Amino acid sequence: MKTTTKSIYLFEEGNAGMKDLLGGKGANLAEMTRLGFPVPPGFTITTEMCNEYSKSGEKMPVGLEDEIRNAMKHLEEEMGKKFGDPANPLLVSVRSGAKFSMPGMMDTILNLGLNSKTVEGLAKRTNNPRFAYDAYRRFIQMFSDVVLGLEKKNFEEMMSEKKKNTGAKIDSELSADSLKDLISEYKAYVKDHTGEEFPEDVYVQLFKSVEAVFKSWNNPRAIVYRKKEHIPDDLGTAVNVQSMVFGNTGEKSGTGVAFTRNASTGENVLTGDFLFNAQGEDVVAGIRTPLELSALKDAAPEIYNQLQDIANKLERHYKDLQDMEFTVEEGKLYMLQTRNAKRTAQAAIKAATDMVDESLIDTETAVMRVTPAQIDQLLHPYYKPEDKDKAIADGRLLAKGIPASPGAAAGTVVFDSDEAVRLKEEGKDLVLVRPETTPDDAQGMLASKGILTSTGGPTSHAALVARGWGIPCVVGCEALYIDPEKKIFKAGDRTFKEGDSISIDGSTGEVIEGLVPLVYPTDMPKEAQRILGWADKIRKLGVYTNADNPRDAARARALGAHGIGLCRTEHMFMERERLPIVQQMILSAGDAEGGKRAVERIRETLAAAKEAQKAGIQARLEDAEKKLEKPWKEYRETLDKLLPFQREDFRGILKAMEGLWVIIRLLDPPLHEFLPSYEDLLVEVTKLEITGENPKLLKEKEELLEKVKALKEFNPMLGLRVCRLGIVYPEIYRMQVRAIFEAACDLKKDGVDVKPEVMIPGVGTENEMKFTREMVDSVAKKVMEEKGIQVVYKVGTMVELPRACTVAGDLAKFAQFFSFGTNDLTQTTFGYSRDDASGSFIPVYLEKGILQQEPFQVLDRVGVGRLMKMAVKEGRATDPKLEVGICGEHGGEPSSVEFCHHLGLNYVSCSPYRVPIARLAAAQAVVREKSDYSNK
Amino acid sequence: MKTTTKSIYLFEEGNAGMKDLLGGKGANLAEMTRLGFPVPPGFTITTEMCNEYSKSGEKMPVGLEDEIRNAMKHLEEEMGKKFGDPANPLLVSVRSGAKFSMPGMMDTILNLGLNSKTVEGLAKRTNNPRFAYDAYRRFIQMFSDVVLGLEKKNFEEMMSEKKKNTGAKIDSELSADSLKDLISEYKAYVKDHTGEEFPEDVYVQLFKSVEAVFKSWNNPRAIVYRKKEHIPDDLGTAVNVQSMVFGNTGEKSGTGVAFTRNASTGENVLTGDFLFNAQGEDVVAGIRTPLELSALKDAAPEIYNQLQDIANKLERHYKDLQDMEFTVEEGKLYMLQTRNAKRTAQAAIKAATDMVDESLIDTETAVMRVTPAQIDQLLHPYYKPEDKDKAIADGRLLAKGIPASPGAAAGTVVFDSDEAVRLKEEGKDLVLVRPETTPDDAQGMLASKGILTSTGGPTSHAALVARGWGIPCVVGCEALYIDPEKKIFKAGDRTFKEGDSISIDGSTGEVIEGLVPLVYPTDMPKEAQRILGWADKIRKLGVYTNADNPRDAARARALGAHGIGLCRTEHMFMERERLPIVQQMILSAGDAEGGKRAVERIRETLAAAKEAQKAGIQARLEDAEKKLEKPWKEYRETLDKLLPFQREDFRGILKAMEGLWVIIRLLDPPLHEFLPSYEDLLVEVTKLEITGENPKLLKEKEELLEKVKALKEFNPMLGLRVCRLGIVYPEIYRMQVRAIFEAACDLKKDGVDVKPEVMIPGVGTENEMKFTREMVDSVAKKVMEEKGIQVVYKVGTMVELPRACTVAGDLAKFAQFFSFGTNDLTQTTFGYSRDDASGSFIPVYLEKGILQQEPFQVLDRVGVGRLMKMAVKEGRATDPKLEVGICGEHGGEPSSVEFCHHLGLNYVSCSPYRVPIARLAAAQAVVREKSDYSNK
Repeated sequence: MKTTTKSIYLFEEGNAGMKDLLGGKGANLAEMTRLGFPVPPGFTITTEMCNEYSKSGEKMPVGLEDEIRNAMKHLEEEMGKKFGDPANPLLVSVRSGAKFSMPGMMDTILNLGLNSKTVEGLAKRTNNPRFAYDAYRRFIQMFSDVVLGLEKKNFEEMMSEKKKNTGAKIDSELSADSLKDLISEYKAYVKDHTGEEFPEDVYVQLFKSVEAVFKSWNNPRAIVYRKKEHIPDDLGTAVNVQSMVFGNTGEKSGTGVAFTRNASTGENVLTGDFLFNAQGEDVVAGIRTPLELSALKDAAPEIYNQLQDIANKLERHYKDLQDMEFTVEEGKLYMLQTRNAKRTAQAAIKAATDMVDESLIDTETAVMRVTPAQIDQLLHPYYKPEDKDKAIADGRLLAKGIPASPGAAAGTVVFDSDEAVRLKEEGKDLVLVRPETTPDDAQGMLASKGILTSTGGPTSHAALVARGWGIPCVVGCEALYIDPEKKIFKAGDRTFKEGDSISIDGSTGEVIEGLVPLVYPTDMPKEAQRILGWADKIRKLGVYTNADNPRDAARARALGAHGIGLCRTEHMFMERERLPIVQQMILSAGDAEGGKRAVERIRETLAAAKEAQKAGIQARLEDAEKKLEKPWKEYRETLDKLLPFQREDFRGILKAMEGLWVIIRLLDPPLHEFLPSYEDLLVEVTKLEITGENPKLLKEKEELLEKVKALKEFNPMLGLRVCRLGIVYPEIYRMQVRAIFEAACDLKKDGVDVKPEVMIPGVGTENEMKFTREMVDSVAKKVMEEKGIQVVYKVGTMVELPRACTVAGDLAKFAQFFSFGTNDLTQTTFGYSRDDASGSFIPVYLEKGILQQEPFQVLDRVGVGRLMKMAVKEGRATDPKLEVGICGEHGGEPSSVEFCHHLGLNYVSCSPYRVPIARLAAAQAVVREKSDYSNK
Repeated sequence: MKTTTKSIYLFEEGNAGMKDLLGGKGANLAEMTRLGFPVPPGFTITTEMCNEYSKSGEKMPVGLEDEIRNAMKHLEEEMGKKFGDPANPLLVSVRSGAKFSMPGMMDTILNLGLNSKTVEGLAKRTNNPRFAYDAYRRFIQMFSDVVLGLEKKNFEEMMSEKKKNTGAKIDSELSADSLKDLISEYKAYVKDHTGEEFPEDVYVQLFKSVEAVFKSWNNPRAIVYRKKEHIPDDLGTAVNVQSMVFGNTGEKSGTGVAFTRNASTGENVLTGDFLFNAQGEDVVAGIRTPLELSALKDAAPEIYNQLQDIANKLERHYKDLQDMEFTVEEGKLYMLQTRNAKRTAQAAIKAATDMVDESLIDTETAVMRVTPAQIDQLLHPYYKPEDKDKAIADGRLLAKGIPASPGAAAGTVVFDSDEAVRLKEEGKDLVLVRPETTPDDAQGMLASKGILTSTGGPTSHAALVARGWGIPCVVGCEALYIDPEKKIFKAGDRTFKEGDSISIDGSTGEVIEGLVPLVYPTDMPKEAQRILGWADKIRKLGVYTNADNPRDAARARALGAHGIGLCRTEHMFMERERLPIVQQMILSAGDAEGGKRAVERIRETLAAAKEAQKAGIQARLEDAEKKLEKPWKEYRETLDKLLPFQREDFRGILKAMEGLWVIIRLLDPPLHEFLPSYEDLLVEVTKLEITGENPKLLKEKEELLEKVKALKEFNPMLGLRVCRLGIVYPEIYRMQVRAIFEAACDLKKDGVDVKPEVMIPGVGTENEMKFTREMVDSVAKKVMEEKGIQVVYKVGTMVELPRACTVAGDLAKFAQFFSFGTNDLTQTTFGYSRDDASGSFIPVYLEKGILQQEPFQVLDRVGVGRLMKMAVKEGRATDPKLEVGICGEHGGEPSSVEFCHHLGLNYVSCSPYRVPIARLAAAQAVVREKSDYSNK
């Protein structure tokens, strides 16, 4: 940050571009002054002074007090009043104002400049002693609180006491004399508790207040907030000193806030609140109910029209919806603040499209006016705020977990996935409640409207699957004790059972007792579609979707996906009717493929053997061949049974995505994921052993246990999975490739334009890619010959291992596309297991500031990103046309999408419900990149 | 490879440097000819001709036959005989000869040039018809076998039949006439089985033989061998055609092999075998027992002296121990081959040091003459070959597993680690037999002389620990069925039980019934120490050791280690008396550290809270503080109990390594490794539940089960371990750091020169390094202040995650050294779990040629190496003095050591028994690098 020599800027010297130095509030006050709007004169002490103050161990910067005195002189001249002058006192407000709006910092001191003498002068000049004493009372109260650190509530108690003693019901019934008494009591209290008189010297008042603002930059609440929001600690706050205007001098005065358009709906109508005869804090305090702005229209049409005129001008100037504060003093309007308004998703979208139609902004700007999170909100059911507030007010909030998949869901509690499938068929809306979910729960999750778990983080199985399928989900709700065996969950001392109703909000993490009425969004609103349409024209990244079935594919296509970037095949294996076949296949696979390799080895040995050894080797070969017969038969039979299922799977998807590329990933997870749980079997066998009831079943289970144990791995994530499966068990991959090409050929024969791409997961060496590519090509060729149809296709790989990145140049010799699997790449680059880390040390790391972001949510640009960059560069060096995309969860996360744009990827692929988010984020990345350049 | 136009080289045209073109045998024959030794004239057809032959689909290269005819003319002139001339026939031998000696290729055809006419000429000229017919008989047999592909045994049967019919007991009793008959039968057999006459045309004989050599390059046995030995397929073989000399013309003839020095002991004495009146194949066939070479000394001193003279000259010329073949024909000596001799470890070392003393070679050459594997052999007990051979001949070989840690062990079978500890105390030599080992077995392994497992590969737990401790080990012995419950193992249909004796050979993988007598190497032989001393002067890499206790440290120091590169602290936690304390500590750690974080969080919230909320937060704080009390007390108490143990651990190690750096790694493994097995507990609880016998125990076990379950991870390798432990549970690391510095200060007070280095495992982000560095520095400072002693120390990190490599430049801001943990780095870079991959898909990958090397044994230079290079470069860019080493298993593997040299590391660290290997390998890397440069 450059250092300037100027420590104070008069409002007329600054402008809106100086937020670093003047803070947001100061810069906008300067801008409004510059534009000729009625802003009470004032000046801003720069953020650099605050930093100097902090760095020097809380000493006022040398010369700053003199500068303040000079600036005050200037104010005195402009206002024709004098600071501390009993005859015609100048009063000022002191407000903090950092670059970003920050709760926790000192807010406001009003009426500064009052003391026992000037209060009398004010009383005389306004001819309103009650007003003057009330102003002084307020000032003492605020100053004591924020500068002297005395508790506000003690002053409030003194005032209540006074009202009681004088029979006043509300503040304004206190007479001037009572207020005078109260002021004496306040002062005595200050003397008592600080040992010093309340300051009479107005400059002491001012300097202490400025110091208090400086200090508040480092108060705990501000520090915590900055840490949470990743705001740097060295920004500092500016201090705004502004001459007072009074909205509480009578019924021709007042104060209010106004929005240039409706911030809830986006409608192009000036809206806001107003209070007659009130100072700003009265509006905020909420003691009196403010009037709608239309009341001002009737009561003071001139003022209203002036405000409307200013609003129009401000909006045209800032080209954005403004949130303004204003005060009317004796019929004269003053502007105290303007800033870009916070708004709802609906309002953001409507205002942005309206402004384009009004030619106020261009489409690029409109695209930047809507956040990806706002687009996300539009796609999920939600609760009307009033309904949810009511439920919470009624004490129905049970707990708050981690919001893991947005949207609201209300339904019947179910603890078991099979039960969920059954109840779904009865037409029930369900919320699946589990300690955690596993792949076994897939069908049950799909059958539910919402998912609630007590463990796991935002990247737990439940969260990932729920987001993928767009099911609202709350995870890690540790306050709940969930017992799926007993089919109950406990919240505190209350117990809920299957069949009870609950509501969850996956956008906020709330879990509420009973049913809160849901509002279902219909289609994506027309205005949002316009925004996304503009985004599509701007963005350079393609947007694909991750979809495993025709329903998801169709949905994603409707939401704007231009292809499937990841069609997983494992969920297909999990389906109810297939799982037993899959299990049988897996149990024979090891003996079959292992036996086949043994036979090949012996054949090789036989060919190389010396004469004398041949007979013995021949005998071994025959043994091995005989041993292979049974498992091979079983293996082939089960694969042959699975083939038509898979063919139908692929047929459906390819058809749904007609004309678009569909990237199908061959089987990825470790095989034991398809088998019964080892631990369950262990318990079962132990029980059967002890009871001795069913020796036949015991034997069966023991055998199964042995086989499951053989497939068990210490670290399944690093075990026999991904393409290793297809190399150790090539028949499984061959069956899948055959199914893909049979489906593609059949469809093409029917005139459907199919574009299959086969993706090999987890390749780490050139030879893996070469081996699998050759395997795919040979099966594809065979099927196409059988069918007499040629289909255009590609073979590529998922780049999800660090080693793949280091040999990307070699992989690109055989891979026609790369798709970054950043979930796994993050796991191996960091050495973090997603399943273990998210609920264990990552939260601690985030808390301690070791990590700034959860790397499974926001792509780690430094480490993972560097490997990706290497892969893109070297892959394209081998094959300049290499298509590169991403299909990890990050593909739908805005900051990660932006990074992918910078990496020069061809596309991002994400779950259907995140497609619109990715479309928007991709466009915003382009615009931001341009403006980054133009700023240089 | 450059192409020459010359397809044939006469022996006098070549030299020893032309092995690529002439093969090893041809080049050495040319060299001997060039030097003037008595070599029967001949020529070599180049390897390029072989490649041309293969590439053209097995067609003789155009013009080659004419070239051969020309070369034969040359031979005829030199020999004064004519090829195919019945009056004075020239006979030749045809031999293959590739660059590397290769079994499986066509070996030799002798006596080529004989047919029905020349045989008569030979008979006449030698005046020895029996000799001539026997030569012809042998030729037909060899030619039929290797050129015509007819089975040898059929010819042998015909000969046996002939002997039977004629009453001859041995071959030489067959008369000339009988041999003549036999030749007719041979020819008839050939005609019968090939449809063609046995070739009379001597050039047809020659060309077919040359083709047969060419073809043999691609025979299955040769292909399999090349694949196994990583010999490129495009080298090709040369063909040597040499005029015949005969060792079987009578008692003044003979044939033999000789070594310039004793190849078993290295003694500088000409040794070898000799047979009178014999052809080469008779020596090889082993039908007659050859005489020692000294017999020749007595029988034909002139020949012997000539041989001795040639041996001396050859050794001086080649400057290496030679293995020679020679023939004596009628009192004249001919040299048929010389090559560098294969030799035992002892011989290699003795010959190398002797040759230095004889000024034959320099020390650098001597260092290159010993292989790291030979040095390794010297350090382990072994079986005398004759003892082992006898045991195997007696049928006592039970199975063969994977040799995992070299050396032999013989002892009593034990199945249980606790039992091993007990039996050890009784003074028994034990072999621990387990399906696999886990960290729980550490004490039992340490108590055993040998370890045998039925599962796992060369990097399984058993293998790693065994190598680390220098305990002979055989793993993955799948032929054995081991049942530790029943305390038996089965080999085939035989069952062995606890107390039975077995012998294992960790260098070969053999498992033998009963006790084979062991030979214990005493110290490293003096000659080996000289070699290693020379190596030390050459090498640039430092050699450190991985040692966890003073005994290992002292041993490694004696073997030449110059520091400890990795002192693991987890084995210390496993020790019998500490484990219960460690377990108690772990069971309280989560509640204690988690509770402490909660308290801190609430305190922060309280500080940042608004007035109105403070009371409620204060109450929550008090609750949290109260809840923390008990676990914190337990946690602190257990840590305080562990502190003195750890202090003693470090005291011992630091003292043993006085004056040298000792790198101590803070706790690394996931905590559940210290707890009882989840599955065992599950079974126990299930049993207790069913029997209902002991409700109190059930409750206890259930609680333990819950806690163990909470610490259970899906992928422990990627879970809460390494520095994550120290950040989530900082008190554990603080205790360890305190113990290190208390020990160091106490020792220094006693005048011991201590040099501790603290190593943080598994750092992946700059903040982890910063956090832990600050933690170590602050505890170190505190302890040193308390003790009033300053100790020089360093803090560094183990670079074992891909992300660490990508941010090495940032890590080096806080790390004073890097040590590559290539075991883990290989795991995460490849995405292979060592435990799962080595016994599962890696063997398949090696078999299918997907991987060329097992990456946990030989460092992967392409992927892992690239990340290491990045880390070295960027770490040193930040801190040019950054010390970089390696402490993974690769640190003791020669090819990996060489790579580390190329990377410019400062040191390698390996298990004590591999220190001499690393010293040698590091020196060899330097020499090889120099010669690589000089070749350019």
